Amino acid sequence: MRKIFRDIVTVNEAIDRLYSFYTPKKQVKEVEIRYAVGRIVAEDVYAKSDVPPFDRATMDGYAVRAEDTFQAEEDNPVRLKIVGVVEAGERSELEVKEGEAAEIATGAMMPKGANAVVMVEYTKRSGDYVEVFRPVSPGENVMFAGSDVMVGELIVREGTRLTHREIGVMAACGISRVKVYRKPIVAVISTGNELVSPGEELGEAKIYDVNSYTISSAIVENGGEAVFLGIARDREEEMRSLIEEGLKRADIVITSGSTSAGAGDVMYRILDGFSPGVIVHGIAIKPGKPAVIAVCNEKPIFGLPGYPTSAMTVFELLVAPLIKELAGIREVGGERIRARLAVKAFSAEGRRELLPVNVVAGSEGYSAYPVSGSYSGAVTAFAFTDGFIEIPENIVMLNEGSEVDVRLYSKLRPADLMIIGSHCIGVEILLSIMRGRRPFTAKVINVGSTSGILAVKRGEADLAGTHLLDESGVYNEPVIRKYGVRDAVLVKGYLREQGLIVARENPKGIGGFEDLLREDVSFINRNRGSGTRILTDMYLKDLAEREGVSFEELVGKIKGYTIEAKTHTSVAVAVASGKADVGVGIKTVASQYGLDFIPLKSEEYDFLVRKDRMNKGIVKEFLNTLTSDEFAEKLEKIDGLRVYERTGEIVEL
Amino acid sequence: MRKIFRDIVTVNEAIDRLYSFYTPKKQVKEVEIRYAVGRIVAEDVYAKSDVPPFDRATMDGYAVRAEDTFQAEEDNPVRLKIVGVVEAGERSELEVKEGEAAEIATGAMMPKGANAVVMVEYTKRSGDYVEVFRPVSPGENVMFAGSDVMVGELIVREGTRLTHREIGVMAACGISRVKVYRKPIVAVISTGNELVSPGEELGEAKIYDVNSYTISSAIVENGGEAVFLGIARDREEEMRSLIEEGLKRADIVITSGSTSAGAGDVMYRILDGFSPGVIVHGIAIKPGKPAVIAVCNEKPIFGLPGYPTSAMTVFELLVAPLIKELAGIREVGGERIRARLAVKAFSAEGRRELLPVNVVAGSEGYSAYPVSGSYSGAVTAFAFTDGFIEIPENIVMLNEGSEVDVRLYSKLRPADLMIIGSHCIGVEILLSIMRGRRPFTAKVINVGSTSGILAVKRGEADLAGTHLLDESGVYNEPVIRKYGVRDAVLVKGYLREQGLIVARENPKGIGGFEDLLREDVSFINRNRGSGTRILTDMYLKDLAEREGVSFEELVGKIKGYTIEAKTHTSVAVAVASGKADVGVGIKTVASQYGLDFIPLKSEEYDFLVRKDRMNKGIVKEFLNTLTSDEFAEKLEKIDGLRVYERTGEIVEL
Repeated sequence: MRKIFRDIVTVNEAIDRLYSFYTPKKQVKEVEIRYAVGRIVAEDVYAKSDVPPFDRATMDGYAVRAEDTFQAEEDNPVRLKIVGVVEAGERSELEVKEGEAAEIATGAMMPKGANAVVMVEYTKRSGDYVEVFRPVSPGENVMFAGSDVMVGELIVREGTRLTHREIGVMAACGISRVKVYRKPIVAVISTGNELVSPGEELGEAKIYDVNSYTISSAIVENGGEAVFLGIARDREEEMRSLIEEGLKRADIVITSGSTSAGAGDVMYRILDGFSPGVIVHGIAIKPGKPAVIAVCNEKPIFGLPGYPTSAMTVFELLVAPLIKELAGIREVGGERIRARLAVKAFSAEGRRELLPVNVVAGSEGYSAYPVSGSYSGAVTAFAFTDGFIEIPENIVMLNEGSEVDVRLYSKLRPADLMIIGSHCIGVEILLSIMRGRRPFTAKVINVGSTSGILAVKRGEADLAGTHLLDESGVYNEPVIRKYGVRDAVLVKGYLREQGLIVARENPKGIGGFEDLLREDVSFINRNRGSGTRILTDMYLKDLAEREGVSFEELVGKIKGYTIEAKTHTSVAVAVASGKADVGVGIKTVASQYGLDFIPLKSEEYDFLVRKDRMNKGIVKEFLNTLTSDEFAEKLEKIDGLRVYERTGEIVEL
Repeated sequence: MRKIFRDIVTVNEAIDRLYSFYTPKKQVKEVEIRYAVGRIVAEDVYAKSDVPPFDRATMDGYAVRAEDTFQAEEDNPVRLKIVGVVEAGERSELEVKEGEAAEIATGAMMPKGANAVVMVEYTKRSGDYVEVFRPVSPGENVMFAGSDVMVGELIVREGTRLTHREIGVMAACGISRVKVYRKPIVAVISTGNELVSPGEELGEAKIYDVNSYTISSAIVENGGEAVFLGIARDREEEMRSLIEEGLKRADIVITSGSTSAGAGDVMYRILDGFSPGVIVHGIAIKPGKPAVIAVCNEKPIFGLPGYPTSAMTVFELLVAPLIKELAGIREVGGERIRARLAVKAFSAEGRRELLPVNVVAGSEGYSAYPVSGSYSGAVTAFAFTDGFIEIPENIVMLNEGSEVDVRLYSKLRPADLMIIGSHCIGVEILLSIMRGRRPFTAKVINVGSTSGILAVKRGEADLAGTHLLDESGVYNEPVIRKYGVRDAVLVKGYLREQGLIVARENPKGIGGFEDLLREDVSFINRNRGSGTRILTDMYLKDLAEREGVSFEELVGKIKGYTIEAKTHTSVAVAVASGKADVGVGIKTVASQYGLDFIPLKSEEYDFLVRKDRMNKGIVKEFLNTLTSDEFAEKLEKIDGLRVYERTGEIVEL
């Protein structure tokens, strides 16, 4: 029987199977209406009393028989005898007869006989009499019993999310408690020997627990209550006992990690020990394939993959809808917009893929920028994006320019300033100075210099940070011209010091690129296409010429030339951990890791700005900040970054 | 000095004056990120460690030097020596040299020398060796240190509302606590002798406290924390001491009630006893004019009017923006849509008016239905509407058809079923039976039969409940024809028993309309235009003919003929409280109030349905329910409502 569950199933099959083994049952509890804002009402609420409960005066003045005032005029007032006073909250036995009036306060009960209220502004009192200067019609300034809410009227429907408005109506009807759906309790367990809780010391080869935080928070966002049971180490007994605790305390149990085949498929084995046990083992979804679903005591247990993005994908498609159902929430979350894919996207056949994207508005409508590369382990993939597109099981490729449906994480707000291009700490410093002056929103999409240039070309970005070195040795200008960008200017930015990063006190005595050829020196290279790699290869071509060998022959002799790190930081980490002796990178990271630095060249980090944005207030502020003393000083403190005489210079292209 | 504050000021002047006496200061507190979802971040958060913190394998398999696999083919594998195993979370001293491989688990730290991972699926192990069937490129299945998040990178900006996504990134960087804006604490005080807390027994002439509930809930909705200090009776000392307690415990103090001139302007006097005291006394806004604003100890005190709608209007325009500012919330709440006014609306010159409206979509776009009449005391005015329009100080009238900007309370969702017309408990019963079968959304706008007919004509409503009696004595058909409604049919509904409502056991021995002429009998009439009034006048015309007098002469003899109650319920209340001896109304309310009932006529409550909606699923269900046994049985239990032989009959118009 269980064998059949070892086949990977589609998302829809997984949902069908879950619901054939488990029936969600909403729980109801009664709460005080004062604390009920945001809760979902579990049954129709009917008015038990009229609002108002009696005919009320809606103004301060005199309760009268309207007929008695019909002759009243500004210069010929009607004179009525005052027979008493009615205050709000007081039961009065008064009766207003012909030619009489009773003083009345706003909210007070209308005395018998009276059918209207003359506002105090249109009266003048003299002794026991009042002069009325304007007529009133029957019912004027009176709110009749039940005219707001009538007994028996349906005032709040089942399924309503309570706001101050419905709460006010219930209060007005004297209802102090209301039945709402109890928030489903969801137990959260992280598993893995490598996990350390944030805030604690991170040992070597360890990583911080992310899933228990994202999952707990997403449970709350979907209307549930999260109970974190802790991190289970890779011992089956520990995991099993935490899951058992979860089954006792919660309506749903979620674990993450220990689902991969290589790790011995631990979670599958544990969950299949429960009865009826595992009902889904592997879902055709990317990321998130190794998910396991089990049922025990009429409660579902979700074994999510360990990677944060994979875990959240499965959560989003399978767990979130269930939590919402139990919470009684019917609102469909997440708005959708149509966009054009800015770059090609690939997907595996037979798997549904959730691809995180950034969305920007340009001259051709919305563009969706997929997060590139292998993102299933990247927390930034879902944190810094606007939403995702769902690529169905039968699609393997979406072309650049394809129309896609983006499900937004939250409302898409056009940022005041849109920067797409190469990432640099200098940009963050510029933005932080600007934010200190006045609030604004900036969106920074780090997709590298080349994509930034294209985004400026398409009008999607206000500006792009770029540091592309041409083979002629000139930064940015030649490359931008090659891409045929019109209607933009290049604003010279600042210098980033590139050099050789070596261990502290340079134990191997490395002085330059020629030392890379030594037998006892291992190198860590950067990825092809990066500005740093282009710089490295320029130096190595020079060296090859000087040595009289071919470039290929030369790099063949460099130990580690083929090992490509993707960031400055990973080069520094490789050197700091002793995995490599030397790499090329910016001084900033060398300092951060306490490494020695041998300067090679000052890289020119510039900004490509659309001409039509040069007069936009926030862009002007950006460029003014670039040339400000404050920026120069702050940059000074960052080792390896500095402004120079060309900073702020505008180059026409 | 204080005298100047006795002039009524505009909303904008009130805001300017508040900010010249008071400067909002945001407070910051540190919270655990696990419980920080929904909080607003108070300062930029930077990454303190790389993510991932080291080069990680992203797949289970073998860590290799990519160069060693370049020759691998499906039928000609490369054979590598296994030099060890690296598990996730383990620090390994292993080094992978030429021709070697290390078994590696997903998430484990890459051993020195290796630059790629071959997935286990493309390998075959035999003893100490592994056969690799596919080449890998450098970096394949490896996630480099810092490639997700780099040290020093800005990960969460000040002002961000935290979701699971940002919380995940902070966790990944090892950040366990985050500085957020402390929710401003707002003290809430209700005042008034007439107030009773919901859930308690409502004495005569008392009403339930609504404001402390709506205000507390709205404080939470706007990002604050509400502290309810209780209901102060109309004793100045009690009010003052609660306000003093509020100033100690909270950032803002809100009172409601005791602001009207007639009540001796109590709140003004109390608030002016603080220092510097009252700064605004009266705002040109409708509803909400008598609001008072004071400042003490650099904290604002808002004295809101007692009427729920007035209180909420002032809260919305003056208090909510301040709470949001203190809470650090920058999102602008409430979406806006353009609509066409369905009926004329009036506003006072020199006052800004917030007019609650219902919005429906029709063939001519959106229509906004203002809530009619004197609504400033109506809790339903804001509870059951979709939003409001703001009528500026300089506009006194907006014509039917004017384009208006509606600020929505929440997202406008077209209801599955739209009913506009006369209100009846029978409709609520129909809907509750339907909801028992499957969930759907219905919007019921009770604007009376005539407006319902026009809404059907304009395509805004699927159907309208109507019970309009023509002078010929025929219900609905003639009137609908008069309005020239095409493309609609009349579906006969059910009967509502109308009759004379008299006190229990009929102490005055009333038998018919002729008794209304007696000296010792007082009558309570209904408002002109209502179906019941038309019915009453028909009977009285008959009587006049029989008596041989004119109608005017006859009604002149009826005590109370000019007193017009607006609902069936208020007629019943008038009789039950002894204010009147007899009135005309439906049996349902007579039973609810334990009154005696003398039947007169069975009123025909029918449904006007657009032809193009007759095939709409939910409309079909509505009509099927109308003719169902279940509806007949449920109606049977409601005294005075019943189905009959014509129920469900379709009349072509």
